[in-house]
Amino acid sequence: MKDALYGGVNAAVLTPMHADLSIDLDRMAAHCRWLLANGCNGLAVLGTTGEANSLGLDERIAVLEGLVERGIPAARMLPGTGTTNITDTVLLTRAAEAAGCRGALLLPPFYYKNPSDDGLLAYFNEVIQRVAGDIRLYLYNFPQQSAVPFTVSFIDRLRSANPGKVKGLKDSSGDYDNALAYVEAFADDGFEVYAGDDSLLKPLLEKGSAGCITAAANVNCAIGARVYAGWQGPDAAAAQTMLTATRKAVTSVPLIPGLKALVARNTGDAGWHNIRPPHLKLTEAQQAVLFNTFDASGVRLAKAA
Amino acid sequence: MKDALYGGVNAAVLTPMHADLSIDLDRMAAHCRWLLANGCNGLAVLGTTGEANSLGLDERIAVLEGLVERGIPAARMLPGTGTTNITDTVLLTRAAEAAGCRGALLLPPFYYKNPSDDGLLAYFNEVIQRVAGDIRLYLYNFPQQSAVPFTVSFIDRLRSANPGKVKGLKDSSGDYDNALAYVEAFADDGFEVYAGDDSLLKPLLEKGSAGCITAAANVNCAIGARVYAGWQGPDAAAAQTMLTATRKAVTSVPLIPGLKALVARNTGDAGWHNIRPPHLKLTEAQQAVLFNTFDASGVRLAKAA
Repeated sequence: MKDALYGGVNAAVLTPMHADLSIDLDRMAAHCRWLLANGCNGLAVLGTTGEANSLGLDERIAVLEGLVERGIPAARMLPGTGTTNITDTVLLTRAAEAAGCRGALLLPPFYYKNPSDDGLLAYFNEVIQRVAGDIRLYLYNFPQQSAVPFTVSFIDRLRSANPGKVKGLKDSSGDYDNALAYVEAFADDGFEVYAGDDSLLKPLLEKGSAGCITAAANVNCAIGARVYAGWQGPDAAAAQTMLTATRKAVTSVPLIPGLKALVARNTGDAGWHNIRPPHLKLTEAQQAVLFNTFDASGVRLAKAA
Repeated sequence: MKDALYGGVNAAVLTPMHADLSIDLDRMAAHCRWLLANGCNGLAVLGTTGEANSLGLDERIAVLEGLVERGIPAARMLPGTGTTNITDTVLLTRAAEAAGCRGALLLPPFYYKNPSDDGLLAYFNEVIQRVAGDIRLYLYNFPQQSAVPFTVSFIDRLRSANPGKVKGLKDSSGDYDNALAYVEAFADDGFEVYAGDDSLLKPLLEKGSAGCITAAANVNCAIGARVYAGWQGPDAAAAQTMLTATRKAVTSVPLIPGLKALVARNTGDAGWHNIRPPHLKLTEAQQAVLFNTFDASGVRLAKAA
């Protein structure tokens, strides 16, 4: 689709850490540069893959500011700013706008299970009203983790109540039909639907989606970019097959430590394995499975600088 | 059981708000005084019922400090200090100790579904190590909301790794057998198990539990105290029946707005209805159902000062 703020491949950027689990902003900025140089259009920092919910409130702000200070273009960043509550969600979203971001990706208030659509609407209306400003909001549909799905009728009500504010959605349901319903309902109005599952990139581009925002893009962005650039061309099917194979590989083990292990291997930097509990580093056996299945996809990572 | 820090009836204290949804600390302190004067032994502020996950990080600290400033005894408070991450959990738990609290009630890192026991153990070990200090930790088992249950074997490992630190558990599973398993495994060592469901107060006291921490105690603490004071006596069965009836009444409608409605009625203060989205005030119809079923229990609230 045209005029998408984050059209193309966006990585749900990993958050590297020092041995004491503090955030390594230098290593993170280097990884962001590698992503932008290797096919990523945008950087969805501070999402599930970025362990945002394992970071403290101040740490989340420090990541935003620290990356901008290190020269990462804020306009390419789509930070996760959703929390369980209005107060901190507003604070983070305003910090994202202050840092120069054009959009922010919002989880629903995920502590509460099965809130009513009226309650969710009141929540997001309050967030949007308090954020004010020009930043555009993207909804993060991830019912397996947040337990709160966004329905088409809910999005319709939210957009009507807040014209021009809600610009798109990342769908991590993994369900093609669910994502397609968003595209069919809203894409004509410029609503940007992003696949959260690499295997759905080409199928949803064919229907009018804006691209993808995925965890696996930390390692498969170059091949994702090939799919995006040529999805109507002769190479697309083969590229999508490779992309789907990398997705399968990284989801064959715990996802976040697995992605960190692949980056550790590519950078030769064992510090990349550091991860906050309750996540744990991969075992040797898990790592062997991952490396074998990933390498079998045929994808090779460009060396880090 | 003897020597429990919070032995008896503890209310999961409601958080009153102004019309703009900011926290009303004066009204909250008055409610705390009413609870202590009407049968509550302890005040489990900032829990699920206190909408803690609808409050910002700074607001949670402001509640602790604001109540102490208003004369609420910190030694009677058992604040919820669990968040999704180590950083803020440590910050809140240290703030609780600094405010004078002897214990804090910790949710597991609830964003992640089904973390491994090894991962959970690493999480809590890190929290305990960083908190340092003398504050005792209580685990909050609420799998319906947090999706992460604490097993007996997990608690055993955690206590062994951190001698003297993990002093008890609130079980909101609503499952008698689950709570009983904790009591049987650990009560002899002074581990305080609190029922999260009023209907289990007497049955679990008979087995060696320390009391209860419940939402309904905001309105039924006087009758809960009767059960606790005389659970081996002739009045206990009748008191438990009334207590269970109030529990049924308040869970016949959305729990938190329902409790706020009952306090609003008792205080004659409509401001008590204020609640943060995604929770919503009760409808008139829901309120009628609640008031009818609650009044049918025979329990009458002592007038607020």
